[in-house]
Amino acid sequence: MKIVESFGDLQKALGELKQSVGFVPTMGYLHDGHLSLVNKAKEDCGSVVVSIFANPIQFAEDEDIDNYPRDIDRDLNLLIDGGTDLVWIPTVKSMYPEDFQTWVNVEKVSIPLEGKFRPTHFRGVTTVVSKLFNAVHPDKAYFGQKDAQQAVVIKQMTRDLNYPIEIIICPIIREPDGLAMSSRNIYLNDQERQAALCLSQGLLAAGDSFQAGERDAEKLRHTVKNVIKKESLAELQYISCAHPETLKELEGNVETSLLSMAVFIGQTRLIDNVLLGNSKS
Amino acid sequence: MKIVESFGDLQKALGELKQSVGFVPTMGYLHDGHLSLVNKAKEDCGSVVVSIFANPIQFAEDEDIDNYPRDIDRDLNLLIDGGTDLVWIPTVKSMYPEDFQTWVNVEKVSIPLEGKFRPTHFRGVTTVVSKLFNAVHPDKAYFGQKDAQQAVVIKQMTRDLNYPIEIIICPIIREPDGLAMSSRNIYLNDQERQAALCLSQGLLAAGDSFQAGERDAEKLRHTVKNVIKKESLAELQYISCAHPETLKELEGNVETSLLSMAVFIGQTRLIDNVLLGNSKS
Repeated sequence: MKIVESFGDLQKALGELKQSVGFVPTMGYLHDGHLSLVNKAKEDCGSVVVSIFANPIQFAEDEDIDNYPRDIDRDLNLLIDGGTDLVWIPTVKSMYPEDFQTWVNVEKVSIPLEGKFRPTHFRGVTTVVSKLFNAVHPDKAYFGQKDAQQAVVIKQMTRDLNYPIEIIICPIIREPDGLAMSSRNIYLNDQERQAALCLSQGLLAAGDSFQAGERDAEKLRHTVKNVIKKESLAELQYISCAHPETLKELEGNVETSLLSMAVFIGQTRLIDNVLLGNSKS
Repeated sequence: MKIVESFGDLQKALGELKQSVGFVPTMGYLHDGHLSLVNKAKEDCGSVVVSIFANPIQFAEDEDIDNYPRDIDRDLNLLIDGGTDLVWIPTVKSMYPEDFQTWVNVEKVSIPLEGKFRPTHFRGVTTVVSKLFNAVHPDKAYFGQKDAQQAVVIKQMTRDLNYPIEIIICPIIREPDGLAMSSRNIYLNDQERQAALCLSQGLLAAGDSFQAGERDAEKLRHTVKNVIKKESLAELQYISCAHPETLKELEGNVETSLLSMAVFIGQTRLIDNVLLGNSKS
């Protein structure tokens, strides 16, 4: 496994890779969710490239970039075991030099859900992913369904900007008790870790209700709300039942929809989602 | 010379090209300025790709996209003669489908000069050039110094977004009497065509003055203004003496600078510029 930092070294190393190239962008502190993306890329492609870059421009000033968990040695060992061919670890200074001034912005699908509470977040995501795509020029790129809106936004950007890149969205990987894997789970103390189960349990309850025939968007949202409400350490920020591609909030009877939410467990903000009425869920 | 329209056909045709790839994006209605870019690309690269696309999103509502001159047969003949390998002529509908919503915006250097009078212009330029770069994935891309601010904006975008593309800026090509070549020159009647010489003559006068030792930015601007003022069919929109990279307006003594302007000749808006104190001028 080759590890590079500079853009020049990356370009050189890319030239030596077997085609086709699968790309997994990460912010590091890898878990089994990330590794499932690496595995899928390994299955699909001749070479796997992973970037590790905690991207400052997708965090607002009051968010947790400085405390974002890091353990680069552990990450690299996991990536070697996963059969990664090339790891790119750019520096913040090289990605955002002093006169940096170019932004990639996806307008409509960045606005609701996460975008409502993190208004500069997706602009940061699409700008950095565009930079990573340009630098790595992969054939396929892998993202997790955990960040459901991010997946929609990246797919929209890829289409709109003519990237000849296939975007592959991989299923959420969960702990045995149902908690969706996230680098931020490390912030939870034992009590909070237990409380955090309300997210997946709320979605499970709504999913069961959907399976049993419930189609009303408001009732599905309500089912999740009720589960969250019972957990005293949890505070719901939003629950949404939206069109899975336009992300427009739905009312009345729904067929396929994205049920998604953000919940504070103490100070830690967690997100989770399920696709209803979709075989990919 | 291969001619393609769809994105899929483009990708197929690109795979068959000799490396490296030089790219010349155009809006069509080609003149010797465009052909000088094709020639340079031919010198530098294994293959030359040209796009022809009158990009609607870089025109404001009151601007002239619908009347923008077109002659695709003539363009194709000129490109064959120039040794072009591949021409991409995308449709507006394929470039901007109904749900298109992603913009690439270069902030600072898009603001002054042209940006002041055409506030949505460069957002349209950088968005389309980003799309063209992603689709064509060239090694080098060629632009004319005639659109001086565009050259600065594109170079900034290329750096900021990590495109591994070398941007080559080629000198302005002028008619024998000094008028900078432009597809828009076709709009000028005989009288206006004569009047339009005031742009190059103004720059020439300022260049002579600079050669003779004049360094004061305001006096250099004034020299150009005086030439334009004498031409009754001409109306100066702006004259700028700016830093050639940041495009910040300069005061006092200048060493290298970009002297640029926009002038209405009747209804036709023309631009021209000269780099002072720079061997590339």
